[in-house]
Parts: sequence; C-alpha cells; structure tokens
Amino acid sequence: MINFQTSPEQYKHWRLSIDGPVATLSMDVQEDVTIAEGYKLKLNSYDLGVDIELADAVQRLRFEHPAVQTVVITSLKPRIFCAGANIYMLGTSSHAFKVNFCKFTNETRCAIEDASAHSGKRFVASLNGTASGGGYELAIACDEIYLVDDGNSAVSLPEVPLLGVLPGTGGLTRLVDKRKIRRDRADVFSTLAEGLKGKRAKEWGLIDDYFPTSKFQEAVAARVNTIVGASDTKDFGPGIKLGPLQVVTTVDARNYKYVRVKLDREQRYADLTILGPEADLPTTPEDLQKLGDAYWPLQAYRELDDALLHLRVNELEIGLLCIRTEGQIAHVLAVDKTLADHKDHWLVREITLNMARVLRRMDLTAKSLFALIEPDGCFAGNLLELAIASDRTYMLNNPDETIELAASELNACAFPMSNGLTRLQSRFMATPAIVGEILNHVGRLGTEQAQGIGLVTFAPDDLDWEDEIRVAIEERMSLSPDALTGMEASLRFAGPETMDTKIYGRLTAWQNWIFQRPNAVGEHGALTNYGKPTQAQFDYKRT
Amino acid sequence: MINFQTSPEQYKHWRLSIDGPVATLSMDVQEDVTIAEGYKLKLNSYDLGVDIELADAVQRLRFEHPAVQTVVITSLKPRIFCAGANIYMLGTSSHAFKVNFCKFTNETRCAIEDASAHSGKRFVASLNGTASGGGYELAIACDEIYLVDDGNSAVSLPEVPLLGVLPGTGGLTRLVDKRKIRRDRADVFSTLAEGLKGKRAKEWGLIDDYFPTSKFQEAVAARVNTIVGASDTKDFGPGIKLGPLQVVTTVDARNYKYVRVKLDREQRYADLTILGPEADLPTTPEDLQKLGDAYWPLQAYRELDDALLHLRVNELEIGLLCIRTEGQIAHVLAVDKTLADHKDHWLVREITLNMARVLRRMDLTAKSLFALIEPDGCFAGNLLELAIASDRTYMLNNPDETIELAASELNACAFPMSNGLTRLQSRFMATPAIVGEILNHVGRLGTEQAQGIGLVTFAPDDLDWEDEIRVAIEERMSLSPDALTGMEASLRFAGPETMDTKIYGRLTAWQNWIFQRPNAVGEHGALTNYGKPTQAQFDYKRT
Repeated sequence: MINFQTSPEQYKHWRLSIDGPVATLSMDVQEDVTIAEGYKLKLNSYDLGVDIELADAVQRLRFEHPAVQTVVITSLKPRIFCAGANIYMLGTSSHAFKVNFCKFTNETRCAIEDASAHSGKRFVASLNGTASGGGYELAIACDEIYLVDDGNSAVSLPEVPLLGVLPGTGGLTRLVDKRKIRRDRADVFSTLAEGLKGKRAKEWGLIDDYFPTSKFQEAVAARVNTIVGASDTKDFGPGIKLGPLQVVTTVDARNYKYVRVKLDREQRYADLTILGPEADLPTTPEDLQKLGDAYWPLQAYRELDDALLHLRVNELEIGLLCIRTEGQIAHVLAVDKTLADHKDHWLVREITLNMARVLRRMDLTAKSLFALIEPDGCFAGNLLELAIASDRTYMLNNPDETIELAASELNACAFPMSNGLTRLQSRFMATPAIVGEILNHVGRLGTEQAQGIGLVTFAPDDLDWEDEIRVAIEERMSLSPDALTGMEASLRFAGPETMDTKIYGRLTAWQNWIFQRPNAVGEHGALTNYGKPTQAQFDYKRT
Repeated sequence: MINFQTSPEQYKHWRLSIDGPVATLSMDVQEDVTIAEGYKLKLNSYDLGVDIELADAVQRLRFEHPAVQTVVITSLKPRIFCAGANIYMLGTSSHAFKVNFCKFTNETRCAIEDASAHSGKRFVASLNGTASGGGYELAIACDEIYLVDDGNSAVSLPEVPLLGVLPGTGGLTRLVDKRKIRRDRADVFSTLAEGLKGKRAKEWGLIDDYFPTSKFQEAVAARVNTIVGASDTKDFGPGIKLGPLQVVTTVDARNYKYVRVKLDREQRYADLTILGPEADLPTTPEDLQKLGDAYWPLQAYRELDDALLHLRVNELEIGLLCIRTEGQIAHVLAVDKTLADHKDHWLVREITLNMARVLRRMDLTAKSLFALIEPDGCFAGNLLELAIASDRTYMLNNPDETIELAASELNACAFPMSNGLTRLQSRFMATPAIVGEILNHVGRLGTEQAQGIGLVTFAPDDLDWEDEIRVAIEERMSLSPDALTGMEASLRFAGPETMDTKIYGRLTAWQNWIFQRPNAVGEHGALTNYGKPTQAQFDYKRT
C-alpha cells in the first residue's frame, strides 16, 4: 500500500530550507529507503517514494511559504545531481506500476511549471553534478538550468541508447517544445549516452549557463539574487500549515472528512462521494487564513487528490468511479463566490489553483468516470466540474424531488484542463454559445433543463434509475480495461493540444507502448538486461 | 511482397465511375481476393489490398478527373456499406503489419480530407447499409454522411466493446475533433457494439441525415446536385493520365527513373537517392499538361512515395534511410519557379499538393532519416525539404568542392507538415527569424554558411566524412528500434498539434500500445478470441 502523504519532518530524501525569499530543495537520496525490495537508490536515483516527497515539497512551498520567490533545486551528493528514475526499480516493476509511476512524476513536474506560471515562484536547477535521464528531466521542468563545469559533469538523456525506452517524464517533449532545441540536435542529444558538458550543452540550449567548480555556488547565488531583486512578488506574510489528512480505512472503504470511497471489488468499481461545504463559511481572506487547511475547498480537494492517487496505484482493478456529491448547492455557490470575490488574494489563488490541479489529475486518471446526480446532491460550481469531467453523466428524472445543477463564475475559467480549455468549452465544441448560456443562467437547472442544454447524458426516471445504472456499470466493467484507457484518453481531450497534453498523450502513449515491447522488457530486452553482463538483443523490425 | 501500384482496370474491390462533375466510388469487396491467407473479406470488410485501391482512386480523381466536384462513396452490396478492417486479418497479422496497415489507411483518409480542403472536391458518404468500425471511420473522413433508414442499418464503432482495441483509423479523434460530438455521447457511441440508427445518429451528429430506403438514392442525388450547383470549381478540362511507375528490382536494390534504393541488409540501412530534374523542363501549364506524369516533380515524388511505402511494409528490418540527392541545384530551382509562378493552375496545384503529401509520408515513416549532403547533390527548394525532414543532416565540409544548399519560395509554405507548420518553422522554433533569413537569402549556402545558420547538424571534413558517417550509421542501428520510433515521433513534431497529428500521435500510439497488450492479442485476448466460441478473458488492472 503506497501512502502519498508526507511532510518535511518525515522526508528521507530531500531537505527543504527557507531563507527569506529563497527556498533550497536539496536531493540527498538514502539508497536503502525504497518503497519496494530489490534495488538501491544509488547516485540520487529515485523511486516513487522520492517523488512523493518532491511533490509534497512543491505543494507546501505554495501554501506554507508564499513569500518564497525562487526555489533552487540541487543535490547534496558530490558530483551527481540526479541519475533519474532507478533502472532496477523500473526493470522489476509491473507494467501498471511503471505507467502510474511515470504519470505521477509527470504531474509533479507539471506542478513545478504551474507554480512558476501562476504563483510567482521561479525554479532554478543548480546542477552541481551530472543530471542524467529523469535528473535532466527534473532540471528541464525548472525555469533555468545551471551546470557545474568540473570536467566531468554533464546533462544527458541516456534512455534510448542505454535502456531502449524513452525519456518519458516529459524530456523529449520539453526539449523541442519548451527549450525549443533544434530537432536534429535533440536527436543527437537523445541518442548520446554520455550527454553533453557545459560548453556544448549551453550552445545547444540544453542549459542556461555553466560555471567552474570554484565559482559555481557563488554564480548561482548571484543569479538567484538577480531573480529575487527583479521579482514583483509581494511579501505574502505567513503561510498556512497543511496538516495531515485524517482518513479512516476499512477493507472496502476509505473515508476522509469530505470524501468517501466505497469499493465494490467484485464488480470492480468504486463509489466516490464528495460532501459539500458547511453553511456560513468565512468570506474574508483574513478569516480564511485563520481557518487554513480546514477550509472546505482546500481540505475537500486535498482529500479528493489523495483518494485519486490511492485508487490509481493501490486499487488497480477498480476500473470505474461512480461520482456523487452530497450537500447544499447554496453552500457550494457561497464558497465559489468567496473564491471569485477574492481571487487576487494569494491564499484564494493557491486554493483555486490546487482545485484546478486536482481536477486535471481526475481527467488524467485511467479509470472510467460516471457522475450520478441524485436528490441531495450538490453538483454546482466547482463540483459541477466533476460532472463534466466524467465520461458520462446520469441525472435522475423525478419531478417529485429536487434534483439540480448550477454553474458559478468559477466554471468560466478557474479550472482549465491540460489542453487549456475549460471543461464546459471541451464539452460544447460544436455549440460554443451554450457555454455562455450555462454561465449566464440565473438559478439552477432541473433534470429536464440540464438534459435539454446538454449537461446530462441520460436522465432515467425513478422506475428505471437503479436498473439503468446497474446495467451501465456491468457493461462498462465487462470491457477491455486497455481499450477503455486508450478510448478515454482520446475522447476526454478534444480540441487543442498543449505541452502538457503532448506529454500525457503522445509521449506517454509511446512510452507505454515501448514499456510493453520485448525489446525493452522481454527476456533479452534492454531494460531487463541493464547492469547484467549480457547484451540486450533486439528484434530489429521497425514499427 | 506488397505492391502499392494499381489502376482502375485492375481494381478488384472498387468501381470508379465518372458522370460529369460527379464521381461514384463503389465498394464491392471480393471476399476471396486477399493479400494474405487465412481470412475472407466478408461484408465489405477490408484488408490492405482494398485500401491500396481506395488510395489509388482518390489520387486519380485529383489528376485524371480534375473536373469532378463531388465524390460519392457507397457500396454495391445490399444492406451493408462497409464492416471495417477485417478482424481475422488483424487477428492473424504481426504487430508490425497491424501498425503499418493502420498508418496507411490513416494516410488514405487524410488524403480524402486533403482533396476536400484543397482540391475543391466534396466527399459524400452514401451509407446504403450499415457502416461499422473502419466503415464508419471511412464515412467520417468524408464531408457529409447520409444513412439509409431501413429499420436495420446503423453506424457504429464496435472496436472497444467487441474487440478490445480502438477505432484507430482516426475514428475517436474525428468524433470529437471533426464532428465535435459531445464527449459523453462519443463515449456511449464508442462502447455500443450495435451503434445507432438514423434518428438518434442524426440527433447526436454522427450523420448529417437519414432517408427511408425508397427515397434514399433520390435524396442523396438531390444533395449531390445541390453541392454541384453551389460549387465554384471551374471546369478544369481534361486531366492527365497517371501511368504505371517503372521499377527495376534486384535482391538489394529498387530503382526507378528518379529514385534509387540500395539496401544494406546486414547493416539494416538503405541508401535512398533522388535524382534531380533535367535542364530546360517546360514552364507553361500547357506544356506541363502535355508532359503529364513524366514531369519531374510529379514522377520523382510518385516514385519516392512508392519507395517509402515499399520500405515501410516490405523491408521491416531496414531502420535507417540515408538520403542523398544527385543533380543540378539550378534545375531544381527552375522547377520550383515554374510551380510557384503557376500555383493557381489546377495541375500545378495538384502536383505541389502531392509533393506535400509525400513529404508528410516521409515525416510519418518509422525509420530514422539521415540526409547526406555531398558534391553533385541538389538539396534545393523542394528537395531541401528532404534534408530538413531528416532527423540529422550531415554536410561535407571540403572547400575544394562545390557543396551547396538553396531555398526556394516553395519552402515558405507549399509543403506543410501534419502539424500545420513548415519544416523550416519546425526546425527553428527558438529562432523564427532565421526562417526568413533563409528564405530571403539570395544564392546558395556553402557548408560553413549552412552550418552557421543551423541547417546542418554536423559538417565533417573530407578526412573524417566516411568514418563519421559509418560510425553514425552503426551507432544508430545498434539502438532499440522501438525506442527510436517513439523518440522520432516525439522530436519530429514540435509545436502545435492538429487533428492529423492527434491521429498519428495520441490515437495511434495508444492503439499500438493496445495492439501489444495481452487483453487484445494474448491467447485469451478479445481480438484473438473474436468469432470463437470462447469468451475473451481480461486482466482487469487499469493502467
């Protein structure tokens, strides 16, 4: 059972230190502290446990240290920044684990870029030694990259030449799309096991600069000072503490304060219920700051995030989430109003950005999603996103009960998908005017209205409801889980593609293909053979 | 050995008839005429042989029948339009063949859309019976879809529910991106084996209209008349005939008039040499029309296209193409000038569009591409595209010889990649001003200039040239062919994505992944089990 919760006091592999506007996040991987048996995390290589700490640190920097303007990512090991994902870990992992591991590490790197783009934090990769594979992919997720020139240290992506797999944590995409490296140079670099050192790495755009060992720390510090001096980020005052989430688990349930997961292992689906906010929550930033991590939109979405990660990694056979909400629409809309009214306040901004990230995590989850809209539900505003993030939406049609949906102004642009569109835009590609209609609609939408406007897939009546849902679940769970993953990944992301969707779509799908191929994972495959005296043997047919 | 050349007189599965501005392309698959053993092409299902004829027909409509304004695609079989790719063929094919088959059928459907977008031809899918799977994917590549309402006929994508694979010939992408079907409806449709009939199919946007059997032919004819009446396509007069390509093959060579392929099977690479045009080719549309299919830019690129298809499908172990040109730069530039001067003439337009399609076929070929620029080469204008389409460009640096590159105005926009960018734009993402510099440069670029401006990856001198090329080939050929495919597919397409690149990137990569998965192709996989009395058995882990 993999646990995604941690905190700086518990870190085994990272040290987080704060010095006014500068945070330093130092990697110092303990080679024996692994989340599985059979490998050692040498040379600052990482497994999922290391990356869970990194994700936690990036998250805490936003909430607990809002005044930080620059985050320096570096290593405490001599001559090595990071050797990337541990190869023996990859070689001994199941296909499903490899895929989930890569998805999580990708999300962490996208979270770094999200903090850079929206939270006024600039990330500096201070490569005091070689950054290879996932090590360079971590660096390239930062805004700036500086490499020590010690005659030995290099940046490299040795996955293709050494392992027969891709640098799949965004590396290939960020080379040509973020750093806009010329594609022929990207080709050379990505096939060169030893990588490139300072001068040529800078000439080709792989790093921003390089400095001799004796001047390295000083030069990076000078650059950090320049960034801090140029920053217009204001002093946000004290942050709020992200306390541990309380979760009660039984053999088939996982209950947080606002999120309940109930597993039907035999049928391979889970009921995922989100409880709406209480009445009369604070409405001023000062009061929100006091409430801190107990404020519903922060706590409920942190719980939802943890539940999604748990379901992805620890409950592989659960193929479908039936998503319900319980609570008062008015209370959800009141929270959305507070978030909209104070959207420029740092804490409100961070809370909203976090909600957006959790919703993107949901879009990227390889499980079918059915939203079930019933009496006492509160699919309104931010929770309406859960309904339109779902692959299908079922809404009970019973005139004797109050069953409603409602939009809020947060549905207009607060929660962009990875493709840059809102979920309403993605849903109404053919009829974009309906997006405005829904956003401008005063009041709530009953079942027939919601179905008429296109927010609902099916609206069975009271007599049919249970049977229809039961049959839909049974049918869904009879389908090939692989075909569903590929289908959902295609249908959920209509419209434009961004660097993020290229990473989760094109790059990841190719990597997953390669992760299945005998040339990588077969008896004589390159990944299997790594570190052994035998040579990899390839079937050279090109496909 | 699969032969990609055919002509209407040789068609086994299609009938092409022309009636003034209307062409009718009728599918009538002969179930025993297959390109491999072990299956029958029942119910207008298709294999690669059927699709080669379709691709040929679409190509000939452009060159031989320029006055055609509407192409009706229909079936001569009662009650069935097309049942899609033959499942037993897929079930018995190698992974590599499946992948190449899907790529070619995708290119054919993109060619239909290219003819619609650029050649003033409107494609009407006249579904006189059920269109399922690849049958509906063919329909959705057309501009308009009409379905007979006979109480039985439906459109469907049964791949996910019946076969555990994707509708991978663009179906999923075109559902949400071209026809902009609401994603929850696309989800329902793509998991419903029996599909949808007229009324609901129209309501959901899957078809444009439906008509009862008794009125179907008449209603489609009326619609075709409306299109023809509204068309501003002028009468282009007689077309030109596309004669068969002459090719001389030996055990390790394949030689056309302008294209030479020489295989090194032991080292697993091929030399691909394109001979430039002769001097003093005609420059007026009238004379080009007389020259017809013998005109260099048409013949050479048709030959290149055939060579690429041959190498993809018949020479799987060849992993690298070393691309050279031979000829006079001045002659290539003269051809480009003629094409640019008369770009509005229908034949010049078609010749240029075909060159663009062949170049895109090269971009999408799963083989490494090295361009080798040596004395007597003519990488200029349209042939310069071959150099910048390559993963790497090597240019000999020898001041004693004339070794040059040159751009023409055709490099500015005549040959867009699948992502909508030109190859120069894709290459210079970081420094877009250089594109203009290259296009505005008067005269030719020698090796040092070409390298300085960024057109060349490496420029070894005379002493190093042979060794460096030899080592580069050896190194390339030692790498995992799968990792190279995934890497090249990622690095070649920086920047924006389009519906086409989503089909070749996201959708295809997922399909290829699924085509490897035991849930599809294992002993108990859905594809393996199709048509057998046994049920597919899935490993239900979601990844």
